[in-house]
Amino acid sequence: MQRTLISQIKDNDGKKILIKGRVLNIRNLSNVVFLIVQDYSGTIQVVFEKAIEVKAGEVVGVEGMVKKEPRSKYGFEIQGENLEIISAIMEDLPFDLSKNDLNLSMPVLLDNRTLSLRHPKVQAIFKLYDILLKAYETVMREEGFTEVKTPKILGAATEGGANFFKVKYFDREATLAQSPQFYKQIMVGVFERVFEVGSTFRAEPHFTTRHVNEFVSLDAEMGYIENFYDVIDVLNRVIKKIFLTISEEGKPYLDMYNVKLAEVPDQIPRVKLADIREIVKEKYNYEIPQDTDIDPEGERLAGQYAKDEFNSDFIFITHYPWSEKPFYTMPCAENPEETCGADLLFKGLEISTLSQRIHTYDKLIENMKKKGIKPDGMEFYLDTFKFAMPPHGGWGLGSERIIQKILDLGSIKEAILFPRDVKRLVP
Amino acid sequence: MQRTLISQIKDNDGKKILIKGRVLNIRNLSNVVFLIVQDYSGTIQVVFEKAIEVKAGEVVGVEGMVKKEPRSKYGFEIQGENLEIISAIMEDLPFDLSKNDLNLSMPVLLDNRTLSLRHPKVQAIFKLYDILLKAYETVMREEGFTEVKTPKILGAATEGGANFFKVKYFDREATLAQSPQFYKQIMVGVFERVFEVGSTFRAEPHFTTRHVNEFVSLDAEMGYIENFYDVIDVLNRVIKKIFLTISEEGKPYLDMYNVKLAEVPDQIPRVKLADIREIVKEKYNYEIPQDTDIDPEGERLAGQYAKDEFNSDFIFITHYPWSEKPFYTMPCAENPEETCGADLLFKGLEISTLSQRIHTYDKLIENMKKKGIKPDGMEFYLDTFKFAMPPHGGWGLGSERIIQKILDLGSIKEAILFPRDVKRLVP
Repeated sequence: MQRTLISQIKDNDGKKILIKGRVLNIRNLSNVVFLIVQDYSGTIQVVFEKAIEVKAGEVVGVEGMVKKEPRSKYGFEIQGENLEIISAIMEDLPFDLSKNDLNLSMPVLLDNRTLSLRHPKVQAIFKLYDILLKAYETVMREEGFTEVKTPKILGAATEGGANFFKVKYFDREATLAQSPQFYKQIMVGVFERVFEVGSTFRAEPHFTTRHVNEFVSLDAEMGYIENFYDVIDVLNRVIKKIFLTISEEGKPYLDMYNVKLAEVPDQIPRVKLADIREIVKEKYNYEIPQDTDIDPEGERLAGQYAKDEFNSDFIFITHYPWSEKPFYTMPCAENPEETCGADLLFKGLEISTLSQRIHTYDKLIENMKKKGIKPDGMEFYLDTFKFAMPPHGGWGLGSERIIQKILDLGSIKEAILFPRDVKRLVP
Repeated sequence: MQRTLISQIKDNDGKKILIKGRVLNIRNLSNVVFLIVQDYSGTIQVVFEKAIEVKAGEVVGVEGMVKKEPRSKYGFEIQGENLEIISAIMEDLPFDLSKNDLNLSMPVLLDNRTLSLRHPKVQAIFKLYDILLKAYETVMREEGFTEVKTPKILGAATEGGANFFKVKYFDREATLAQSPQFYKQIMVGVFERVFEVGSTFRAEPHFTTRHVNEFVSLDAEMGYIENFYDVIDVLNRVIKKIFLTISEEGKPYLDMYNVKLAEVPDQIPRVKLADIREIVKEKYNYEIPQDTDIDPEGERLAGQYAKDEFNSDFIFITHYPWSEKPFYTMPCAENPEETCGADLLFKGLEISTLSQRIHTYDKLIENMKKKGIKPDGMEFYLDTFKFAMPPHGGWGLGSERIIQKILDLGSIKEAILFPRDVKRLVP
């Protein structure tokens, strides 16, 4: 008998069909056994009016009759006749996957990741992630951006500093890309507007709920801007469309977390960092420490301010100190101590950094000197600016942080299939 | 004045507009100067009836009147009035980007990659690549696959062998992913059908026209298959839809290379490796060496056979020796010396490898022993098979090789923005 997908059950009322999938849940009620079975197209309840031998989590084939069942949330159920165990469970599962909530500690959740991912609420996280990827790719193309794939093994570190991983590359040493920065800028000289969805690597010994050592960055770079507000405008539109798509297509998954996404404003509030410092002090009686641009508590309260004042989950904080930002960011004409750029906060967490970039060779060299950065290994990047680069800017957007904050997950690691941190290389 | 995109010129007949873009070409004819200007939306000719100061390759703003011009291939032209150099060229370009063909040696092409990419025929390669990525993502979702992103820094090598790069990961040693193999299989246990577009790394000291050390693999893995022909069927459909999309949306770029893509057959021919050996010997008088499964010349002639016999650019070669394939591939029930899998050749070049995988724990352990592979660091992968994995299989598809062969490029490196080989880490 040919397999019928669970999504096709509604077209098979009264017919005998074969479904195949994983048993998510089993309930025994006197002489009746209820199975919840999931395949890639959906979930359905199967009712057996006889004893059957099967464990939760097993992979089965079920033959039975499709019956309308208005009391079921699926609208139909299957009256099970035959059950075949296609693949069995050899050992007890380390936790009960059929509970509504897993409620596991982070180490247990991640140590057993290959199994905890099978829980419907964990699945939901990555179904939303899938929608996020699709939405980003779609909206970026609508905005005229060309998708590029740039190398992850590099001769020189793109972001400077010490937070890069070293790779043994044949007889040489290479580094893993901390960002596609140099390459996406170079590609502005080719396609004017480019985007990339790519792995990025940061060798930071963080132990926080919002950092990991490998993540997927949603990057973009665009030419012919007047100033960094042009970048803000495009990112604002992109975020708005992404959240609309997630709201619509992700509804069943958001519902599992009782999340209703607020609409993204047409104009997300834009506030200068210096002003945020004063606002946070005045309104929330918190002084952002002088030795940072803004600390996590300051970000949280800036997010609070956006919500209280503008009913927005988002806020752009602009004009960070130039001293804190990479050498390629454009200092403001009005005040070269400030950067022509912004961070985007979502529910008080930075999810994106954007800026106008320096696009002339001489200014780039001058700024590298100011920051004490040597051009070794970056010549190919710097030389490109001798050959007419348009004014441009762009962003990096942390894919996992978006999902983390949409669902209010305790850690970014819950929004990554197999996260990497200082201590975790496995699974 | 607001910028008008070149794609909007057709809606501005008789109006004065401002365009911004790069000067691709300049022709001086007595008192008339013709500029070809490109922005991200298109290309247009600008006519100045006065002397202007501008170099090919510079980034400009042009104000002028839009005029219908049936003789122009664009249908319109701009009668230039003012020209502003937005960004100038500081040094002579290393080659003439305004020629129809660059005709550069591979080292010159790649050493100057940041500039050679600006040539329209080189741009065309990566416009097609962009369409390929979009088409893959779209068709995989249509087929019910969920997009996943799996880690690229791994504790253990997924494919065994010695061809992996080592990373210094804090106080430990890690490896770069040779493929998402373990992770995509694990994800079959979660979503049944998954795909990934991701960077893969192979530390092979190759010096060929079809190998690089970093590439983008289009991966897929699917559950509940009867046998590997189910995987072949889905890949056949996927390839057919991708090529249809590239034919339609990529036409202007294919035209630049005088390429017309042949239709992909509904059923790409499927021939056993043992039969291919005989066919190639009989038809083309070439004996595939006994010490390989199939050599590049054998693949080329197998492709020739597909063309001659079935008028197909594609052929699946099935049943490779199990001894040549990784430990996780399923040996055939009828003959365990053969693998239940296939390679897909496109114009005589392998672009994909697929197989059914072993899905039971005991058989996996048994096969690892046969191949002399130690389970160290793979426990998380192996243990997953104790918990009911459905029969499954999948493929890896080389994105760059597809574009290489579509355009008949001499080397895969021409189909990669910034290729990585043994000697090349820059740009």
